[in-house]
Amino acid sequence: MRAYDLIIKKRDGNQLTKAEIQFLVHAYTAGTVQDYQMAAWCMAVYFQGMTIDEIAALTMAMAHSGDVFDLGGIQGKKIDKHSTGGVGDTTTLVVAPLVASCGIPVAKMSGKGLGHTGGTIDKLASIPGFRTELTQTEFLDQVRTIQIALVGQTGTLAPADKKLYALRDVTATVDSIPLIASSIMSKKIAAGADGFILDVKTGSGAFMKEIPKAIELAKIMVAIGKSVDKPTVALVTNMDQPLGTMIGNSLEMQEAITILNGQTQCDLTQLSLLLAAEMLILAGHVPNFAQAEREISHKLKNKAGLGKLKEMIQSQGGDCRVVDDPSLLPQAPYRTAVIAAQSGYIQHINSHGLGLVAMQLGAGREHKDSIIDLAVGLELKKKVSDYVQTGETLAVIHSSKQLTAHQSSQVATNYQLTPTKPNSAPLVYEKISFNDV
Amino acid sequence: MRAYDLIIKKRDGNQLTKAEIQFLVHAYTAGTVQDYQMAAWCMAVYFQGMTIDEIAALTMAMAHSGDVFDLGGIQGKKIDKHSTGGVGDTTTLVVAPLVASCGIPVAKMSGKGLGHTGGTIDKLASIPGFRTELTQTEFLDQVRTIQIALVGQTGTLAPADKKLYALRDVTATVDSIPLIASSIMSKKIAAGADGFILDVKTGSGAFMKEIPKAIELAKIMVAIGKSVDKPTVALVTNMDQPLGTMIGNSLEMQEAITILNGQTQCDLTQLSLLLAAEMLILAGHVPNFAQAEREISHKLKNKAGLGKLKEMIQSQGGDCRVVDDPSLLPQAPYRTAVIAAQSGYIQHINSHGLGLVAMQLGAGREHKDSIIDLAVGLELKKKVSDYVQTGETLAVIHSSKQLTAHQSSQVATNYQLTPTKPNSAPLVYEKISFNDV
Repeated sequence: MRAYDLIIKKRDGNQLTKAEIQFLVHAYTAGTVQDYQMAAWCMAVYFQGMTIDEIAALTMAMAHSGDVFDLGGIQGKKIDKHSTGGVGDTTTLVVAPLVASCGIPVAKMSGKGLGHTGGTIDKLASIPGFRTELTQTEFLDQVRTIQIALVGQTGTLAPADKKLYALRDVTATVDSIPLIASSIMSKKIAAGADGFILDVKTGSGAFMKEIPKAIELAKIMVAIGKSVDKPTVALVTNMDQPLGTMIGNSLEMQEAITILNGQTQCDLTQLSLLLAAEMLILAGHVPNFAQAEREISHKLKNKAGLGKLKEMIQSQGGDCRVVDDPSLLPQAPYRTAVIAAQSGYIQHINSHGLGLVAMQLGAGREHKDSIIDLAVGLELKKKVSDYVQTGETLAVIHSSKQLTAHQSSQVATNYQLTPTKPNSAPLVYEKISFNDV
Repeated sequence: MRAYDLIIKKRDGNQLTKAEIQFLVHAYTAGTVQDYQMAAWCMAVYFQGMTIDEIAALTMAMAHSGDVFDLGGIQGKKIDKHSTGGVGDTTTLVVAPLVASCGIPVAKMSGKGLGHTGGTIDKLASIPGFRTELTQTEFLDQVRTIQIALVGQTGTLAPADKKLYALRDVTATVDSIPLIASSIMSKKIAAGADGFILDVKTGSGAFMKEIPKAIELAKIMVAIGKSVDKPTVALVTNMDQPLGTMIGNSLEMQEAITILNGQTQCDLTQLSLLLAAEMLILAGHVPNFAQAEREISHKLKNKAGLGKLKEMIQSQGGDCRVVDDPSLLPQAPYRTAVIAAQSGYIQHINSHGLGLVAMQLGAGREHKDSIIDLAVGLELKKKVSDYVQTGETLAVIHSSKQLTAHQSSQVATNYQLTPTKPNSAPLVYEKISFNDV
């Protein structure tokens, strides 16, 4: 088998066999197929697409290119959650403790943030003492004991995907739905779960700006799950404004605590409950959505989720007093209000813009090895559909340095006002499950 | 400027500026743009194509990536000839002496053969003593003195094209008309001529199997010539059967001599006269085709072309007695007849198939560094439209080893017979000049 022939086959719009895709992935990982051939192949995929069989074969070849995490020692169905990345998206920190508090094991590896989107691991790192790296034994033992562990992703999962993604990143071939879907699913499958709940973001703050593209990606990922026999559900959700009211690591950790404490009712709360409910169904814990929702609401009301978060923090070496007193989390020394220059209803908040503001404040990474500031970020005082008066505070900037009036007024340019109350967009555009693919 | 952005621009179907294309070619040649980015860009070009302005910019950037040969010291317009490669295509060896015998300077660099097609330089190398490599001074002096020199291509012409072609060859991006056209024209322009006659082959033995594709390539190359102000004419010619009656280096040299000697009237003769006539017009030597044809026919009849070939061989150190006695050229020790197994009219000869047979006999190169056997090849006794009786000889194989009956009968499979006389296909499908593009 030669890479050359497989490039031609894809270039000419033909379907590669499972064996051909396996060959390509193995040889590329081993270095016997060169970057330039793989780059040409990826560009051919960009134009010609891939069938579900091809995408599933690519996913599995990449998933098995390194270690596949074995969660077999943990009883019960392990359901993993993945978000394609949003701004202010702290759902994992709410969902994971709630689900674990129902007795469902949550053995989750999460990524670090990059660019305008944050990462769960950075948010957890804001808890003094919290260990985001556990040994495999510690990780499994903790899940067996308290049903939950959240750790950083190890470097050996799906190395083929890592190598291929780095190549796609410099050859303008990231933007291909089959390649995005297989990249995500290969890492998830290598992490060892039995099923997946996928939160596919769409809108100005998301990677997928357009709803149809997001639905297409969601369908392909659910189809991959179906083809490898792992229950998978995807929610296509609104990222046309930041989720919740906080952007930044310590700030989002704080927000997750207040939600689990029953103190905040917002879009972030609502989405977290939906995702948690879907996980209960996927895990086979409840037969339908109504029961799932009832159980999750109950765990929120009786603060079982909050208790589970506390247990996890303690078990991973963190200062669990932050749960009762979030002010123990890192605090930025400066706070600057972003003032509305005119009155009106908020029609749109540029989440991508605010994500970049947070990144520039130090909350996110411009490059993979950027050092981040856990305390800084943005606190939104108004969201879409809210009315503001001239001079009212739209948001508060938490920063490490004093900001000028010009800097804070620049942040205000991310808000678009309108004289009439806008129609509210749905939080979830579509739910995709096995029957839909 | 970043290669990444230029890949996206082309991927998304936009037109690159001259400066962008220059950047890409210079940076790629200098090694600051990597193979994998260039491979992705080439695949994007494969799918999105290029405008004439882009192709001309690419051509000129590659032409100027190394030395551009200076033929300014030779008086008169220098017209170069290029064939896209055929089987039995010995036109250069007939055309160049004929044109030079009219007083038009022919300063020509030719390539070696590769795959199923031969190269002029290999054919000349079959003349004992003939030097295919001259110093620049020797080359120019010879053209000034006797109006003709045929030498091998130097390695420093259009190095960007050489590097890019090698990459395209392993990334399945050879088959892109804009990239083919710019590759050919960049080398031709770097070789320093003032104008070009292009012989674009089409049919089973050609790189361009389909006539419309060949016409498209011809039009683009003529348009490049127009955009860089160099008179260019292309003939789209039939390669659905080998040209002439010989395939192989010494054999084709021999055939060129017999044509210049007025002894052979065949499609090769006819095409050579057409190409030579076009060169006379392009050089501004005659105002129209009728006069050009008259002068070329005259030079064939009075054997001035043959005399010119002899002068050139002598000047380049070759044994010029071969002109009077072609049997002095290398002869293969074995000859095996290919016998017709049935009677009928020859409907089609698979030129690609016969080209590969010749290559396997040793006449051509499977790889760039294959050693070739100058003596071996095929001698066609019958061509398309000829009638053969069962048992009659279709061709004679000239080989270095004795062949089995099975081997010679295998060669016969390249002939397709029909009971009724087939319509003859034209030799020239189309002529493209400045007015057509």
